[in-house]
Amino acid sequence: MSLARLPAVVALGGGHGLAASLTALRRITDRLTAVVTVADDGGSSGRLRDEFDILPPGDLRMALAALCSDDHDGRTWANVLQARFDGNGPLAGHAIGNLLIAGLWQHLGDPVAGLDMVGDLLRTRGRVLPMSSVPLEIEADVLGLDPLEPDELCTLSGQATVAKTRATVESVRLVPDRPPACAEAVQAIRDADAVVLGPGSWFTSVIPHLLVPDLADAILTTRARRVLILNVASAAETDGFSASRHIELLAEHTPELRLDVVIADERFGSADDHLEPFVSSLGGRLVMADVAARDGSATHDPLRLASVLSEVIL
Amino acid sequence: MSLARLPAVVALGGGHGLAASLTALRRITDRLTAVVTVADDGGSSGRLRDEFDILPPGDLRMALAALCSDDHDGRTWANVLQARFDGNGPLAGHAIGNLLIAGLWQHLGDPVAGLDMVGDLLRTRGRVLPMSSVPLEIEADVLGLDPLEPDELCTLSGQATVAKTRATVESVRLVPDRPPACAEAVQAIRDADAVVLGPGSWFTSVIPHLLVPDLADAILTTRARRVLILNVASAAETDGFSASRHIELLAEHTPELRLDVVIADERFGSADDHLEPFVSSLGGRLVMADVAARDGSATHDPLRLASVLSEVIL
Repeated sequence: MSLARLPAVVALGGGHGLAASLTALRRITDRLTAVVTVADDGGSSGRLRDEFDILPPGDLRMALAALCSDDHDGRTWANVLQARFDGNGPLAGHAIGNLLIAGLWQHLGDPVAGLDMVGDLLRTRGRVLPMSSVPLEIEADVLGLDPLEPDELCTLSGQATVAKTRATVESVRLVPDRPPACAEAVQAIRDADAVVLGPGSWFTSVIPHLLVPDLADAILTTRARRVLILNVASAAETDGFSASRHIELLAEHTPELRLDVVIADERFGSADDHLEPFVSSLGGRLVMADVAARDGSATHDPLRLASVLSEVIL
Repeated sequence: MSLARLPAVVALGGGHGLAASLTALRRITDRLTAVVTVADDGGSSGRLRDEFDILPPGDLRMALAALCSDDHDGRTWANVLQARFDGNGPLAGHAIGNLLIAGLWQHLGDPVAGLDMVGDLLRTRGRVLPMSSVPLEIEADVLGLDPLEPDELCTLSGQATVAKTRATVESVRLVPDRPPACAEAVQAIRDADAVVLGPGSWFTSVIPHLLVPDLADAILTTRARRVLILNVASAAETDGFSASRHIELLAEHTPELRLDVVIADERFGSADDHLEPFVSSLGGRLVMADVAARDGSATHDPLRLASVLSEVIL
């Protein structure tokens, strides 16, 4: 008897958006690789970057937690990784998982080896990799920062600042420019059956993957099916942007980008007449489905997203 | 076919001394419970006590590391637990394992459950328990603190201070007096085949177990074989004390104490004519053996200690 292998899937993103795609994908495959933005400069991650000049561990930790299994031990350890120290002392606000990852990195001197060790320890369903081997900054060109000068283009620096801005973001870039990709991430994309981009903070978690040259090249040239998951609503940094504007932004940052499938929530997507032609212009097929969470939280329902992904990928 | 079970052994102590007995005992049984002093107020543990009012995790972490298995993964994780953050920032000097334990305690609200989770995660050969459910302080009466007043009895406070003193320690007590024992530790002693006390810092890691009333009562009344492992040399807090003085000190703190076996290194023990009668007066048999490390470090050689323990316990 021969058993068909589950598909190899690479999910790219950061923060809660990537956790949402992983939480769905872990239900349909265990050949899963998360490729995670490493530009966070806020909160616990920002403090650890300042103290140790390391990759920001927060989004990596969140991805590891999302890949913990669905049994009691798996969910308990996911919660422990995510839990933060209380109080007002030197440890207050640090996520336990961030400290574990930062400690392993210092001890091992190798970010990928440290993440693999946490993954092995917690028996995660898949592997978590940084998108780049060096810590990054995000810079954004924005309009309307000063209400008195609405047409003036200004630069905002720092992921935490860009993600929260109410100004209109026009474009983002990475500092350093053209950073080195994580080699294991590039290889995973080349070997994948499907590559999933998004959902997440568009400028600070999704587009940055396209700005790492070797990662973008792998995404453009892989034989994997390229799947884009749109957000279920616009967020602070994309306030008022339509679904099609989200796609247009990808094309503006990476004109060669081609997509095979775009998954849109039917409520957010159906209000947008331009969506179907935009998806077609990138070579893709639009899949409109009811994937938003029932609690009105502007997040995806993991099991309904898993169901749609299984139809698209398996 | 019936297989004899390995003996249930409880090892009581703290710090490097307990790590030495555990490192030996893990070679001869997997039914092992470490009962650990919780009075440390120095270093990373002291800072965590100050920040979160928790049990000091350091000696518990060291015991967990000592119980990691002898394969590659086990030894790697033992090293990770013990590794400390570099630098001069807010995390510098904290052991990774201390932060993991402190985080679990805050998240779970139960010290024993947190230690069991780390043990399960790292698949340790046995269980690690605190001797008391509350953080403790150690106070010592010492002579000769002021060289000009050699007969004046003074009080020193804090494990870190007592452990390093060059004054002559006469006796120690716990604050709070008569603290509650960890119930699981009491039960483990009652159910054990052998109870091993020492080696370690005599006043700050060994004697404190006899000062927790329910723990002392369990040690006095258990049907387990009571084994004492003497240090291979005197240390700062017992500078110049003979082997027999170490035993006398136990009897001074707990007059009802009976011992079945006392293991002494032949170099330290053979210089002391009083040792055999002191051991006999507590009901015990003296086992003199070459158990000191070859590197002259005043520690035990784990495999030779394991060999002696196996003859005494199995």
